[in-house]
Amino acid sequence: MVCGMSLDELDDLLLRELHADAPYGDKTTEAVGLCGEGRAEILAKQDLVLAGVAAALRTFELVDPACSWALLAEDGERVGTGTVVAKVFGPIPAILLAERTALNLLQRLCGIATFTSRAVGEVEGTGAKVLDTRKTSPGMRVLEKYAVRMGGGHNHRMGLSDAILLKDNHIAAAGSVTAAVASAKERAGALWKVEVEVTDLDLYREALAAGADVILLDNMSERDMAAAVASRPPGVTLEASGGMTLDRLRRVAELGLDYVSVGALTHSAPAADLSLELLPSR
Amino acid sequence: MVCGMSLDELDDLLLRELHADAPYGDKTTEAVGLCGEGRAEILAKQDLVLAGVAAALRTFELVDPACSWALLAEDGERVGTGTVVAKVFGPIPAILLAERTALNLLQRLCGIATFTSRAVGEVEGTGAKVLDTRKTSPGMRVLEKYAVRMGGGHNHRMGLSDAILLKDNHIAAAGSVTAAVASAKERAGALWKVEVEVTDLDLYREALAAGADVILLDNMSERDMAAAVASRPPGVTLEASGGMTLDRLRRVAELGLDYVSVGALTHSAPAADLSLELLPSR
Amino acid sequence: MVCGMSLDELDDLLLRELHADAPYGDKTTEAVGLCGEGRAEILAKQDLVLAGVAAALRTFELVDPACSWALLAEDGERVGTGTVVAKVFGPIPAILLAERTALNLLQRLCGIATFTSRAVGEVEGTGAKVLDTRKTSPGMRVLEKYAVRMGGGHNHRMGLSDAILLKDNHIAAAGSVTAAVASAKERAGALWKVEVEVTDLDLYREALAAGADVILLDNMSERDMAAAVASRPPGVTLEASGGMTLDRLRRVAELGLDYVSVGALTHSAPAADLSLELLPSR
Amino acid sequence: MVCGMSLDELDDLLLRELHADAPYGDKTTEAVGLCGEGRAEILAKQDLVLAGVAAALRTFELVDPACSWALLAEDGERVGTGTVVAKVFGPIPAILLAERTALNLLQRLCGIATFTSRAVGEVEGTGAKVLDTRKTSPGMRVLEKYAVRMGGGHNHRMGLSDAILLKDNHIAAAGSVTAAVASAKERAGALWKVEVEVTDLDLYREALAAGADVILLDNMSERDMAAAVASRPPGVTLEASGGMTLDRLRRVAELGLDYVSVGALTHSAPAADLSLELLPSR
Amino acid sequence: MVCGMSLDELDDLLLRELHADAPYGDKTTEAVGLCGEGRAEILAKQDLVLAGVAAALRTFELVDPACSWALLAEDGERVGTGTVVAKVFGPIPAILLAERTALNLLQRLCGIATFTSRAVGEVEGTGAKVLDTRKTSPGMRVLEKYAVRMGGGHNHRMGLSDAILLKDNHIAAAGSVTAAVASAKERAGALWKVEVEVTDLDLYREALAAGADVILLDNMSERDMAAAVASRPPGVTLEASGGMTLDRLRRVAELGLDYVSVGALTHSAPAADLSLELLPSR
Amino acid sequence: MVCGMSLDELDDLLLRELHADAPYGDKTTEAVGLCGEGRAEILAKQDLVLAGVAAALRTFELVDPACSWALLAEDGERVGTGTVVAKVFGPIPAILLAERTALNLLQRLCGIATFTSRAVGEVEGTGAKVLDTRKTSPGMRVLEKYAVRMGGGHNHRMGLSDAILLKDNHIAAAGSVTAAVASAKERAGALWKVEVEVTDLDLYREALAAGADVILLDNMSERDMAAAVASRPPGVTLEASGGMTLDRLRRVAELGLDYVSVGALTHSAPAADLSLELLPSR
Repeated sequence: MVCGMSLDELDDLLLRELHADAPYGDKTTEAVGLCGEGRAEILAKQDLVLAGVAAALRTFELVDPACSWALLAEDGERVGTGTVVAKVFGPIPAILLAERTALNLLQRLCGIATFTSRAVGEVEGTGAKVLDTRKTSPGMRVLEKYAVRMGGGHNHRMGLSDAILLKDNHIAAAGSVTAAVASAKERAGALWKVEVEVTDLDLYREALAAGADVILLDNMSERDMAAAVASRPPGVTLEASGGMTLDRLRRVAELGLDYVSVGALTHSAPAADLSLELLPSR
Repeated sequence: MVCGMSLDELDDLLLRELHADAPYGDKTTEAVGLCGEGRAEILAKQDLVLAGVAAALRTFELVDPACSWALLAEDGERVGTGTVVAKVFGPIPAILLAERTALNLLQRLCGIATFTSRAVGEVEGTGAKVLDTRKTSPGMRVLEKYAVRMGGGHNHRMGLSDAILLKDNHIAAAGSVTAAVASAKERAGALWKVEVEVTDLDLYREALAAGADVILLDNMSERDMAAAVASRPPGVTLEASGGMTLDRLRRVAELGLDYVSVGALTHSAPAADLSLELLPSR
Repeated sequence: MVCGMSLDELDDLLLRELHADAPYGDKTTEAVGLCGEGRAEILAKQDLVLAGVAAALRTFELVDPACSWALLAEDGERVGTGTVVAKVFGPIPAILLAERTALNLLQRLCGIATFTSRAVGEVEGTGAKVLDTRKTSPGMRVLEKYAVRMGGGHNHRMGLSDAILLKDNHIAAAGSVTAAVASAKERAGALWKVEVEVTDLDLYREALAAGADVILLDNMSERDMAAAVASRPPGVTLEASGGMTLDRLRRVAELGLDYVSVGALTHSAPAADLSLELLPSR
Repeated sequence: MVCGMSLDELDDLLLRELHADAPYGDKTTEAVGLCGEGRAEILAKQDLVLAGVAAALRTFELVDPACSWALLAEDGERVGTGTVVAKVFGPIPAILLAERTALNLLQRLCGIATFTSRAVGEVEGTGAKVLDTRKTSPGMRVLEKYAVRMGGGHNHRMGLSDAILLKDNHIAAAGSVTAAVASAKERAGALWKVEVEVTDLDLYREALAAGADVILLDNMSERDMAAAVASRPPGVTLEASGGMTLDRLRRVAELGLDYVSVGALTHSAPAADLSLELLPSR
Repeated sequence: MVCGMSLDELDDLLLRELHADAPYGDKTTEAVGLCGEGRAEILAKQDLVLAGVAAALRTFELVDPACSWALLAEDGERVGTGTVVAKVFGPIPAILLAERTALNLLQRLCGIATFTSRAVGEVEGTGAKVLDTRKTSPGMRVLEKYAVRMGGGHNHRMGLSDAILLKDNHIAAAGSVTAAVASAKERAGALWKVEVEVTDLDLYREALAAGADVILLDNMSERDMAAAVASRPPGVTLEASGGMTLDRLRRVAELGLDYVSVGALTHSAPAADLSLELLPSR
Repeated sequence: MVCGMSLDELDDLLLRELHADAPYGDKTTEAVGLCGEGRAEILAKQDLVLAGVAAALRTFELVDPACSWALLAEDGERVGTGTVVAKVFGPIPAILLAERTALNLLQRLCGIATFTSRAVGEVEGTGAKVLDTRKTSPGMRVLEKYAVRMGGGHNHRMGLSDAILLKDNHIAAAGSVTAAVASAKERAGALWKVEVEVTDLDLYREALAAGADVILLDNMSERDMAAAVASRPPGVTLEASGGMTLDRLRRVAELGLDYVSVGALTHSAPAADLSLELLPSR
């Protein structure tokens, strides 16, 4: 496992991207006629939280097994502008061919970790945990959820197959919260709890009555969320979602919820700025 | 070709993502016991420029060939909050299984098109064109470059194999701009022009003297860019890059450059907000 | 979804098997020079419970899109010797090329459903449910667990990623049942319960004290299992496993457990006997 | 080649199974927080004939290249309950992630080898050889046929492409044994013999007259098989099949046939019982 | 099966080639801005024997399911310069994207069929058959062997797994023809004959004595081949190989051998000349 | 990169071919019972220019990681009959299993390099360069273009995505050379030149007037080509194609063209003759 992904899946992802970037090799390096061994540094060009460095470095080995590298900082670590995150050694054409593929992965995962870290900072001390969602980039679910963890966040379910969350469309199709929760409690099997999404206090009470284990308060006012917290029975977990921008997070977290989930962690975190610099030959 | 991607590649991308989201099916739908045919709408929940609708809708067919759909708006079109972008028909479990995979693709591509459209709006009337870069999300190069076009932007090269751009690392390895450009002009073959990245006016003049066809002014001051424009010979194309935030774009574009390239189009555009709503059965 | 598997995964499975059986076509059919359209029946040659018929029939279409078929019985149905389960129409060489691949899948899934059905019959009326395990055939997890359901059994977790079960090796590595359960309750997240495997009454009591939600009594004597049932607090689920042969199932089920899990359902069910017979041309 | 399979095919098989068992990692190990290096033994829990140990051990390396192992017994060897078949060293999470995938492969292949060995024991001294069939588990053809060899059996053809066997459906389609054999002898080419399946003595004589090289007596009475043996000309090979249960094998083999083929070797051999035990850390 | 290949393998081959030719679409068609529906003809530009037309036409459907086509001539048919072999209908960009991939396949298979047909013509009336070898182009084995059949030739074995041929290196490793043949006869199983390659009359006699079923006279003089024919016992098949150029084939064939094998059929047949012409729109 | 191809693509190509040649192993080696370590030489059996040796040798490692090899000559080198090109060491069954796959690749690439070298020799001293085309063998584009380079030739574009060439069908669809070139110049972007194919002097002049950067004179008479050369303005590159047989190449090259393109380099070069010989054990 590299950054939460099996090595073969990581290699698939990187090789697909390498072929997308360079289906027939690097026309520029060939035209310039570059060759020989080189050294390069991967540099942070802003303050950021690292995530995915080992996964990104794998790119160089895939381009050429003669490449090697040294990690100078660890995932989860906060580093400042100018920090050398890793060094890479190997044939110059291989380093340049791999550069963008490696950086594209890294800038995205560090961007997510950095943004998550800000969200986690907002709720510090409130007892609430920051959760991600399934709103991830195509092909990147496992890595992006890993980046959330590196930023101090927690993962909600990985996908549709590993946990139960009754959302608006399930409830619409089932007819009512009561019907949906009852059926899920009956059929879920002994190993899973049942979470249900509600959008007002009436549905919240209906969910409690139906025996929901976890209740997601979606797009509810802070006042209603406070009321829900006040009336929750022991053993029921509460999560909030919907419009959870950074400037609002702390206020929501202080209401006494267990979790606040933030889709933007994975779908709208801006890329972090990192670059690769070839070092002068010695 | 669907949204610039071959159908088999699109299917690969969507099937991988469906398996990542639901390796063993949708535990919630099964627990609730949903079945039967349904109808759903895909709705814009903000003003946005559409991109990738047909690609996203393909997801439903891949989950179940019994699904069908109707497009109600076209890629490249600007739509307002509440617009129904498409309708989907088919078995409810299939619609719910495909929902997030389809929306994750769509929110990203519409996010890019919408952001690109803002950038293009900034430079309107200046004669400059907005270009993307190779700073795309892993696995999404072709689709993201399509979304840029839908937003009114233009594509720079697709990757390393289809055009020549001498960047800082090539120049460092070659020793000088002159050496790098000379070699590239010699070896590039008859079908490609040579672009070179420079970071100051001295290097710019060196690039001109070496015969570069296109010159990328990277992270140069507006004053230096203006000087470069003023002194450029006929037949040479000029592009600017580096820190091209939206609020600065117009100023740069008015300097008389041919292209401004903006990495953020693909690496930091926030996701657009869209949702899928099951309609009540009739 | 066909028999619990996505269509693309089923096609992968069947195409791999077709290529393994006939990497260069069917030497016999070619040598005999067979051609023309034919009809065939798939026949039960013993009493059996059906599972996987639609999946098996898919084979014929994959060999030649000109093949079609009609289902004459449904998965989950018990049929007697001589029952025509399905009819197949199409080019004779295609029918003969697909025959063994289709039957090999079908004989295995019907074998599991039939064996499961016997196990379920043994516990009828006791309130206990028959569960499968992860002891499935390589490549067949999803289909075999579907066959268990068709035979009236229930599925335990699908794999390591969707639920939590602390087994002997986890407990050994963690140091004690108490340590393992405590850690799992802490880190499992809000959506999953914690099951723990114990092998004697002392560990059972330790598991209860540690807060396990579900307890698996593994290879315990009937007397000890009875004692466990007698002392269980409300809200705790009990499962038995280990040496659950058909002749012992009822006795165990009558002890008052919620579940009995039987590895043999998927690893040792004998194949069911089915054949394909070409019908004389009309 | 590992156990008769190319390394890349084996890796494909194991990686597919690992992803099916753990699409997102091992929830239990993560919840318990296990880490560190460990040692484990793979133990026979019944008398069995080994097959597939090297293939099964490959699983550990695929999960983590830091795993290593030592073989303590060889394929084809008969071992008793409690025998340590192999030792595995590596990170505990990797060992536990690989455990079930490795054991599921091993229990099946050892089950086949053990069952085959019993069949071979039944015919010992008769001169008849035990053959397998194409009735194998999906995806496992090459490995299961290897397990048959490890149990002392022989392989019939690998599939449809490497040899010629005219079965009931070919004969039905061709019109007669004579027509089918004649055509096959004519078109088979210089490198293959022609085998034909017959179900009574008349067809047997027809097959002989038509020049069949090998004749498969299918579901014929022992008396008719004896008559066939008595009247066979030199150079013709005889094989028997159909209902070849263990208790009947010797009687049939003593009739003087060259081969007895037994579908149950691969489709109904019960799994052998093996387990993996983590050893206490030193 | 299309041209002897399963549809999924053909699609894999064509899609790989399409992606190699156009990883990001057709830059020229896009630059010219072509669109709309078109019609095109595939024309023979020399006398040739057709092979692979249906396989080549599949390319158009893979690029765009909106393409259709009509076959105007059949594989195995000899056509003259200017013959319209097929018509293709569909979107012009799809036709032009598929053109070269389709023609590259077709020019190669027709080239092989045409060259084979000349070789077959040379031996006409002699009773000898022309055989191919395993000296095929990477990735094209099945299709090239099909093209040989379309040209009137016969196939030797498909590969290493379906028949037995003891060549120089096997004999060297085994120590002698006698040792190699004896071992092969013993272990080959009942369904395969044993062919052995010999390079002089002494080895030929040794092969006969050892019981070889088929003997390949490799690079032997015509005089020695005649001697071998003269002394062959009934039931032994003779094949000649080595330097079988077209101008020598008839002389060798008239010696009375059963087969002459010609590597050049598949490794050195010149491509046939075919082109695709867009028709003026109506 | 091995011979211009990424290692993972090369491995895919070789593994596919190995499975096509030996889906179930090598029946002959098994029947003879060969085992033990061996040494072999790869020998040139004619004068040839080497290309692809490292790629071909990779086959042995893929069959068995225990194989190793030594290169005794380099790609691009001309070697005579009897030259030992490489030595291979490893288990005899692995060497024999890999032999044909390795040689089939090598004989094709050396064939292309050798033929290209003859073409390049023809134009020596004229200043014209020999170009290849897109008329390559399915699956072999990248390797065959590498072989052209090894023979001293130059590559035209790799495929449809990396450069612009307006051919007859584009011009037909666009209506005229003028319309097609104008559109391409407008839309091609700053990084690509525009090449157009013309078939007579009128179209040539039209292409010049339209601003084509490169003009391909297709199937034009030597007299017309001379006229084109005589009237070309500075900065325009000229290429000739169509019927460029070896005996005509020099005459055409002496006309003063920049490039002559020869489809036969890749579609009709005869295979070079190489063999693998097992050495006697020491």
